[in-house]
Amino acid sequence: MAMPKGPQAFPRSEYLRRLSAVKAEMKRRGVDALVVKSTANITYLSGYTSKTGSTPQALIVDARDEEPSFIACRKDAPAAIHQTFIRRDRIFGYPEALLADPEKDGWDAVIDLILESGLGRKCIGIEARLFPTQTLEKFKTRALEAKIVDVGKSVDWIKGIKSELEIAYMRESAAITDAGMLRAKEVIRPGVTEADAAAEIIATLIRGANGKAGTDVAGFFLCAAPRTSTCHIRWAEDVFRQGSQVNLCFGGVRHGYVSPLMRTFSIGKPSDQLRRLHDAEVAGLEAALAVIKPGATCSDVAAASNTTLRKYGFEKESRCGYAVGIEWVEPTASIKEGDSTILKPNMTFDLMLGNWIGEDLGCVISETFRVTETGVETFSCLPREIFEI
Amino acid sequence: MAMPKGPQAFPRSEYLRRLSAVKAEMKRRGVDALVVKSTANITYLSGYTSKTGSTPQALIVDARDEEPSFIACRKDAPAAIHQTFIRRDRIFGYPEALLADPEKDGWDAVIDLILESGLGRKCIGIEARLFPTQTLEKFKTRALEAKIVDVGKSVDWIKGIKSELEIAYMRESAAITDAGMLRAKEVIRPGVTEADAAAEIIATLIRGANGKAGTDVAGFFLCAAPRTSTCHIRWAEDVFRQGSQVNLCFGGVRHGYVSPLMRTFSIGKPSDQLRRLHDAEVAGLEAALAVIKPGATCSDVAAASNTTLRKYGFEKESRCGYAVGIEWVEPTASIKEGDSTILKPNMTFDLMLGNWIGEDLGCVISETFRVTETGVETFSCLPREIFEI
Repeated sequence: MAMPKGPQAFPRSEYLRRLSAVKAEMKRRGVDALVVKSTANITYLSGYTSKTGSTPQALIVDARDEEPSFIACRKDAPAAIHQTFIRRDRIFGYPEALLADPEKDGWDAVIDLILESGLGRKCIGIEARLFPTQTLEKFKTRALEAKIVDVGKSVDWIKGIKSELEIAYMRESAAITDAGMLRAKEVIRPGVTEADAAAEIIATLIRGANGKAGTDVAGFFLCAAPRTSTCHIRWAEDVFRQGSQVNLCFGGVRHGYVSPLMRTFSIGKPSDQLRRLHDAEVAGLEAALAVIKPGATCSDVAAASNTTLRKYGFEKESRCGYAVGIEWVEPTASIKEGDSTILKPNMTFDLMLGNWIGEDLGCVISETFRVTETGVETFSCLPREIFEI
Repeated sequence: MAMPKGPQAFPRSEYLRRLSAVKAEMKRRGVDALVVKSTANITYLSGYTSKTGSTPQALIVDARDEEPSFIACRKDAPAAIHQTFIRRDRIFGYPEALLADPEKDGWDAVIDLILESGLGRKCIGIEARLFPTQTLEKFKTRALEAKIVDVGKSVDWIKGIKSELEIAYMRESAAITDAGMLRAKEVIRPGVTEADAAAEIIATLIRGANGKAGTDVAGFFLCAAPRTSTCHIRWAEDVFRQGSQVNLCFGGVRHGYVSPLMRTFSIGKPSDQLRRLHDAEVAGLEAALAVIKPGATCSDVAAASNTTLRKYGFEKESRCGYAVGIEWVEPTASIKEGDSTILKPNMTFDLMLGNWIGEDLGCVISETFRVTETGVETFSCLPREIFEI
């Protein structure tokens, strides 16, 4: 039996709409075919979510064709048949022998496909920042007569405005995230190991919420005292203690889409210092939410947050948010002063008021939101408070 | 309170031993200071396992100094104080503002540190393949008077031979992997969703085994019928059915070290076709194990496996194994014909007899092993059989 097409994350028309937007941008740039390397962008344009680590793979958008082509290592190609809307004769698997070949790699197979598709003298767009020098050189020397141009983050910017169908997945992933936070409230107890709590929370993120399973596990960070001044520790070989603070950051996943959330937990009454910082963060977050609407800039939102934080005596060193969607952080707009990105309906962001001050104080709260026609919708249903246990 | 040093994965003497080996290689290459970018190599040389995604960070090994320096984004620096053996005055955090700066990034801070350390006219080694072109250019233009040389995978090759302390973690991670497989045998049942089974298995990998918690979640792949001809699907929104086959691949983690394992499950009696392929794989795997000893080459091991597989009428397209350790795959030796790497005691590999044939057949079995003084030690205690449910 051949690999059957599976249920797809989106209808074919949705993928064709996205591809049309990409092709319009290609036309504007004079690009005949685009080699998409970013795994998030591949997911966006095809539905492919299988994980191939660092193995070369690419989606090739040829301006002449309705559907793109996808090429990956041969053992990963059946996953593309199953998961994507792409016709099976446009899905290519290169020999697995290329994975450990000292002379060639999967990119040679990608370039072969480009050359065989009659694109050898055309203008080929690539996401140059994602390629190591050696691979860039390979493109230039093997496709000598082609013109290779960098399209920068143009697919990422197109991907930045979500459709209603994508927003639905972001809401589902937020419901899963909320379920994980509520599970955390049940399992974080003095004497419990951080690992046992993480096991319960992550299992919840996979089981999902409202009959919708989590389809992957995204980043998961549990920074408990004395590690609350940092933010990217998975968890430690330690137990929770009476009086301890726990900063949690994670996101449920639906078909690649993540709605991350941060909340601060306190086993027992929070310290006055923690309470003051948290109050400032909530005020900053709510000041930011109040100015979000189409036409405002990322800079406006950041300024509202920063001004409020300063009134409370705090200063946020880092940006207070970033575009979010497939695979968590999108590499485009930042909510920071000076970022002139103009907000449009259905842009989605993680508004992130984490502050890590010196070596002894850190407190987190965030909201994942979309810009609506008139303002803002936050996806989480959880209160903006320190979760006391 | 300043961030305290936490319990470390290895004693200081173990890190200094590793650094001595790296410095000897630097001397051989005429390198004065080495900028380590690979996250697995940073873990190896410092104990740092906090996750910073794509944010620039580097360990700088200066030949003149006993300890290396570590530089990361400011909010990640406290994690290095806590997790690593490195003196706190050698741990540097660069401003978070660099994360979304259109002109500069964290690599500018790394280069600043190099220049301030009096290395501006010295020979600086880098792992060039890990850098995008723009960053390489930045090194060359900002450190104009330094000599920048590519050290290739030299740290990875040093890391390839484990100490007894590292082997102990690989055994612990294998025990966790085994616990996960046994949990899979309990939870995979007709009518159960793949996500619910994954939740239980992953929770087991985090809770750990023998009182040793999993310290992270490594790759996790559950490819159930009709998806058994591919290998990197997390899990699907589907239920298991009577008669279904399930291919599982995952690994427990201890302080970064992974011992991956693959096993094939069958709900009900396996088909004759599946049985034949599995028998061939077990025979190939055991033929490979029989030739492993110091002095044999990776090619010898692969030839033993491939010859045996062929006797059973199968051909394995891909390499049948790779060096394994911190963060799963190490980018050095492959168990494939033609790889002349000579096996030495305490090299560790994932011997991987997965075969994915066409679009309808795939079957997996693997063993993580170390080369001993006289032969081989496999870490898993599980039988080499199709797990019938």
